[in-house]
Amino acid sequence: MIADTVKGSVRNESRGVDLLKALEVAEKGKKLDGGELRGKPVSSSLEAIRTSDADIIVEATWTNLKDAEPGLGHIVTALENGKDVVTSNKGPIALAYKKLTNLAKAKRRQLRFEATVMSGTPVFNMRESGLAGAEIKSLRGILNGTTNYILTEMATGESYGEALRRAQQMGYAEVDPSGDVEGYDPAAKITILANALLNVQVQFKDVERIGITGITNENIKDAARDSKRIKLVASASHNESGRFNVTVKPLLVPDNDILAHVDGVLNALAISMDVQPDVTIIGPGAGGDSAGYGLLNDILSIHKLRPASSYT
Amino acid sequence: MIADTVKGSVRNESRGVDLLKALEVAEKGKKLDGGELRGKPVSSSLEAIRTSDADIIVEATWTNLKDAEPGLGHIVTALENGKDVVTSNKGPIALAYKKLTNLAKAKRRQLRFEATVMSGTPVFNMRESGLAGAEIKSLRGILNGTTNYILTEMATGESYGEALRRAQQMGYAEVDPSGDVEGYDPAAKITILANALLNVQVQFKDVERIGITGITNENIKDAARDSKRIKLVASASHNESGRFNVTVKPLLVPDNDILAHVDGVLNALAISMDVQPDVTIIGPGAGGDSAGYGLLNDILSIHKLRPASSYT
Repeated sequence: MIADTVKGSVRNESRGVDLLKALEVAEKGKKLDGGELRGKPVSSSLEAIRTSDADIIVEATWTNLKDAEPGLGHIVTALENGKDVVTSNKGPIALAYKKLTNLAKAKRRQLRFEATVMSGTPVFNMRESGLAGAEIKSLRGILNGTTNYILTEMATGESYGEALRRAQQMGYAEVDPSGDVEGYDPAAKITILANALLNVQVQFKDVERIGITGITNENIKDAARDSKRIKLVASASHNESGRFNVTVKPLLVPDNDILAHVDGVLNALAISMDVQPDVTIIGPGAGGDSAGYGLLNDILSIHKLRPASSYT
Repeated sequence: MIADTVKGSVRNESRGVDLLKALEVAEKGKKLDGGELRGKPVSSSLEAIRTSDADIIVEATWTNLKDAEPGLGHIVTALENGKDVVTSNKGPIALAYKKLTNLAKAKRRQLRFEATVMSGTPVFNMRESGLAGAEIKSLRGILNGTTNYILTEMATGESYGEALRRAQQMGYAEVDPSGDVEGYDPAAKITILANALLNVQVQFKDVERIGITGITNENIKDAARDSKRIKLVASASHNESGRFNVTVKPLLVPDNDILAHVDGVLNALAISMDVQPDVTIIGPGAGGDSAGYGLLNDILSIHKLRPASSYT
């Protein structure tokens, strides 16, 4: 079965779909359900999920931070139909963490989302096995490659506008860059991290969020004179009065803090625990290969935790 | 059962050992097998391992890079007697990796050694779940906290001798510091990493090893003028001619390399893979809490992978 919102869909239960032929049809610019392939069309992605006999649904549609659709519907439908779910889509996990994890629990299915934060750099899988048993106290990270690239370029003297244009040329920033430069993307990620790793219920809309559009080359120069760098830091921790705070904002990071040296499109997350000093993981935060690898990792984790007899 | 090479041993199968009383006896400076506790003495640690009904043996004796004893004997005996093994002891894993992993396989037991490298900072557990499926191409790391502390202090102007004395005062360096400053400790660690993560058979004695005793403050100043830092870097990779090389030596690390900014007693490991850009993990490389946490992590991993019915 193939279901694509643009190229159409086709399904053939008994023989499967001829993939080479499907590619030919798609390359000719024709619809998959135009009659050139043996099989029937699928009426919608939701029907595809409902009727598929797959064990795992990999949800990789675009991030929508308003109502999380269509990803949210896909994930709910998959879980309700007894399928494990792996996703790279930040929207549903940032906006409906509690609802989705409760549903997965009720259905005894796994919901995994490694690729939603730091792409293929392991965070959730590492917590499960490498940092098991520890209580995570707070998190601090550079979770958006586009803004980190812009700030790194600005530190070499480029203006904000020039750096943004270069980021767009390199494919790091979208034509409308507001999701990155206004901090919505890292806000979604720190929401996911706080819910999943700190076991606190944080709403995406409650993240205190300041982007980088107000940062000038002067600010960066002043910081450098004090041996500091300006970084867009996402953090989740208790403040002095004991209240839990989740923020995304440009901060002066001192030179002796490893986060000050995470440059370009790299991402980083410093994890503070009860049992030992901080562990920091640094790696790619975006890119097709890395996102695909994050999804693969989750699929492998599901496979490992699943008894062989459960495959249908 | 308690077995201690200094304090003696005691075992009581039916009632167990009264732990509070045992502590009292030990605090009085008396031997555990002196008759104050109910139970019989254990003739040796090997007998203790052989006759114990424990599922997991945690081997935490001192590292011996000459013949790996007594740790090696402990681990072999435990595996041969059908017990899973967790260890923080670099000696047996660096000197007898192949022998021990083959034995574990033959006995269908687990042998885990997270705490041997970077202490409680996850490396092997992270590879298993967070970096599963990827082929690791090469490794590069700062694996010894003592030498990294000395080099960091020397960069502030302290002499080698002063920095070493301070490291000894802080408890980072031994009275005989040669295991650290001559690079034996990181050589054992990169041997373990190469065998376990790169799937190549590397012998400890074949590691090309240069310590930090020849480094002067002048060298460090010269490096700084070129925007570089001197770090004792352990690496495992193929060189240009395709030969596999495992080395520990002081290197000029450029400022734009994250390893240049790993200071003090911190450790770091940069992992290069086929599927995505490097992932670097930074964290504690020593300390009782961290070593204990590394051991705990391995115990949790064994528990997770073990069917509940296997507990005897």
